[in-house]
Amino acid sequence: MQLYTYFRSSAVYRVRIALNLKGLPYESVPVHLRKDGGQQFAPEYRRLNPMALVPTLVDGQAVIGQSLAIVEYLDETHPSPPLLPSDPAGRARVRAIAQGIACDIHPLNNLRVLKYLKRELGVDDRARDAWYRHWVETGLQGIERMLADSPATGRYCHGDTPTLADICLVPQVANARRLDCRLDDMPFVARIDAACRELPAFERAAPENQPDAQ
Amino acid sequence: MQLYTYFRSSAVYRVRIALNLKGLPYESVPVHLRKDGGQQFAPEYRRLNPMALVPTLVDGQAVIGQSLAIVEYLDETHPSPPLLPSDPAGRARVRAIAQGIACDIHPLNNLRVLKYLKRELGVDDRARDAWYRHWVETGLQGIERMLADSPATGRYCHGDTPTLADICLVPQVANARRLDCRLDDMPFVARIDAACRELPAFERAAPENQPDAQ
Repeated sequence: MQLYTYFRSSAVYRVRIALNLKGLPYESVPVHLRKDGGQQFAPEYRRLNPMALVPTLVDGQAVIGQSLAIVEYLDETHPSPPLLPSDPAGRARVRAIAQGIACDIHPLNNLRVLKYLKRELGVDDRARDAWYRHWVETGLQGIERMLADSPATGRYCHGDTPTLADICLVPQVANARRLDCRLDDMPFVARIDAACRELPAFERAAPENQPDAQ
Repeated sequence: MQLYTYFRSSAVYRVRIALNLKGLPYESVPVHLRKDGGQQFAPEYRRLNPMALVPTLVDGQAVIGQSLAIVEYLDETHPSPPLLPSDPAGRARVRAIAQGIACDIHPLNNLRVLKYLKRELGVDDRARDAWYRHWVETGLQGIERMLADSPATGRYCHGDTPTLADICLVPQVANARRLDCRLDDMPFVARIDAACRELPAFERAAPENQPDAQ
């Protein structure tokens, strides 16, 4: 398998964690989002990923964009260890936490969005950072309540083994920390993030441990 | 089942289509996003949906936010007709199209985001509409290429029966049309959108046909 990756992308970070949890070897193909005007816009990459975003996973004939679709694909093709619970209500809860991050937080703070704010709307750095923190803090406060209010929360977001929800949480918290977001009123988020980061699968997937990190 | 809904929300529109395709009756509970400072922020609603967003589906003990998580839950608990193909690569393709819309287009044009642009960043109506069109047009051009470049595309996004991908496409195209986005260079999107809208399940789910429409 080949994973088209950028070390700092939190969407690719999710896929790296999933591949590590499954124990699947893969080849990293770097796509530098800030070099050459954005290597994701190169015609040969856009043939693989028409949205011009990372990640893309290539597994034989299958060429898959979108981090959550990739993780579900890996879970279906390599079921052990499972990254989703077996009951529909539990699966829905895990997917809802993951999508709360992947749909309601992360897309607003993507590199391309921050660039648009600056270049097209003339937003200064301070207002752009406030935008970033607003969506991260608002979103993670919602995630905190989902975790705090449910008896299904365990050592990890859902029970005592890592799932798709944790795979999304840790990269988002890493971004939050990098931008100095307020996290001190989120004990469940902080505890679960720390528990995950003790696992080698999460540690090896971290941006700073990637070959293309700089 | 109860569906907490707002007629104009394209995220809820997806769930309404899925419920109709499955032939499942449900009770609509309106959550007006523009009345009372936003009824989604009421404490009793936030207990159901800590992200303070629509939709929420209540099915017995299960309380599920996030439209894609809800559609997958419905597909697992009521498998016929299926809303995802049976092979992992096909499922990944359908999910990637759905997430290309639900993660890369729609979150940027949510009501709360448009409000932030205006209130916090002082963006005028013209620049706000340009923002809206930029993300819709860029994103749907990517979706168009995913559809045009794949032999898996049929009468609908994936083969000849509607899937989760179509469930996301039609509400996004409805939004695009409402904001006068350019769609004339997207023949696959236009053809599939029209084919879907011929189906009663899609027609009955449309915003203008909801009891809370006004």
